[in-house]
Amino acid sequence: MTANEIFKQILQKRSFLCVGLDTDINKLPECLRTDADPVFAFNKAIIDATAAFAVAFKPNLAFYEANGEAGWLSLAKTVEYLRKNFPEIFLIADAKRGDIGNTSEKYAETFFKTMDFDAITLSPYMGRDTVAPFLTYRDKWCILLALTSNPSAADFQYIEDQNGVCLYQKVLSISQNWGENIMYVAGATKAEQLEKVRAAAPNHFLLVPGIGAQGGSLQDVARYGMNSRCGLLVSASRSILYADSSKNFAQTASQEAKKLQNEMDELLKTCLR
Amino acid sequence: MTANEIFKQILQKRSFLCVGLDTDINKLPECLRTDADPVFAFNKAIIDATAAFAVAFKPNLAFYEANGEAGWLSLAKTVEYLRKNFPEIFLIADAKRGDIGNTSEKYAETFFKTMDFDAITLSPYMGRDTVAPFLTYRDKWCILLALTSNPSAADFQYIEDQNGVCLYQKVLSISQNWGENIMYVAGATKAEQLEKVRAAAPNHFLLVPGIGAQGGSLQDVARYGMNSRCGLLVSASRSILYADSSKNFAQTASQEAKKLQNEMDELLKTCLR
Repeated sequence: MTANEIFKQILQKRSFLCVGLDTDINKLPECLRTDADPVFAFNKAIIDATAAFAVAFKPNLAFYEANGEAGWLSLAKTVEYLRKNFPEIFLIADAKRGDIGNTSEKYAETFFKTMDFDAITLSPYMGRDTVAPFLTYRDKWCILLALTSNPSAADFQYIEDQNGVCLYQKVLSISQNWGENIMYVAGATKAEQLEKVRAAAPNHFLLVPGIGAQGGSLQDVARYGMNSRCGLLVSASRSILYADSSKNFAQTASQEAKKLQNEMDELLKTCLR
Repeated sequence: MTANEIFKQILQKRSFLCVGLDTDINKLPECLRTDADPVFAFNKAIIDATAAFAVAFKPNLAFYEANGEAGWLSLAKTVEYLRKNFPEIFLIADAKRGDIGNTSEKYAETFFKTMDFDAITLSPYMGRDTVAPFLTYRDKWCILLALTSNPSAADFQYIEDQNGVCLYQKVLSISQNWGENIMYVAGATKAEQLEKVRAAAPNHFLLVPGIGAQGGSLQDVARYGMNSRCGLLVSASRSILYADSSKNFAQTASQEAKKLQNEMDELLKTCLR
């Protein structure tokens, strides 16, 4: 999927929402617990209820791996369901992988060939080698962690080099030479830094976690992060998935996603330059 | 498993070898390809052939995930087989994970509860939050990437702060305050830096990849990295696993592991201080 195709979808749906499918088997509504594959049943209901308001879906691998081989099956079924029924959706594996060349090739095969994801999140710590095997899939995207939304992001990402440049800024500047098909993770909880991220990567899409449960402001994200082709995919997970634990969970999820879509519609009007 | 128990096993087996189970389904000997679970059949044969010469085994998750849910089953069976038949072995999930708190909790559950690994490799990029949920398992170990063995490790790990301290050194110094049950990855291809790693973390076990296929020297690793309780787990994967593609593969793997064990025996005599 090209950046233009993503932007086109954003304009059509008036949304830059990415629904995070952090599906925790212990948090599912009572009514699904007897289902043969409750995780997939939940995902399917959430997807059906929110796809009209979202341009991307992002399963986080941790929640599927926690269920062992059954979890991988739920994930594969989720990917297949999205691909078949919502082919316009941008599909991100939130895996935060990062390993040496021959191992990275295997991960790339898993997420880009065995499963048909459009993108994967990757850790930059081990450098270019760990990203290169993913970049050879020219119609797929590598989303590198730059500035994350968690409190301890500061432990290393803010370390300054001898010219006062932070590690996350080095990640942004150095990795742009690695290939075209790169996006970045930039946390919503650090709105003032988001401006620096955007300055360092003016044309790249940014995947922005941290609104909703983590407390980031959507207005600030749009103000500091939006570019002329939107350039943002803002993800929300828990605030949509677990807004309601009754049998009406999907309807409530739909309302929560629609609320965000409405806000995004306004922000597209005022911030799109 | 305690550090003392690992050291005791090192002295008993006269070895600090970690066999990397990077089991690539496309590289298996012809004779196994019709097996119902060829990956597990291969692992079982390799384990039986090399466990006498090794103190640790380290499956790299990429190779199992590449086979989807069948891969997870092969991995679970491998862990179970090792636990049952070689309870003294230190068992490392080479997963290089790293995510925020609630997601990290899930990964910790997967590798430390669902599967009974002793340790997991983790990326430090996102800071303390990403490691903390693993550290609460007091009898388990977090093995943080510090200095990796791949060529592009230099992209970020060697970036110096305003006092001339490299990122990998910051990882070593800062993370030591996070908990007791930490080890570090330090690549064998950077022998001169290994001395700096050991100086920064005098008492920690180091997991050292990069000998064998990647070209690092075992002598240099022992010279620069060994401490009074050995403090080293040196891993070899491809050089043992794929030394022979005939039906004698396990016998050849055994010989390759024994060769390394013999070298390690000598190094334990001369370098153990």
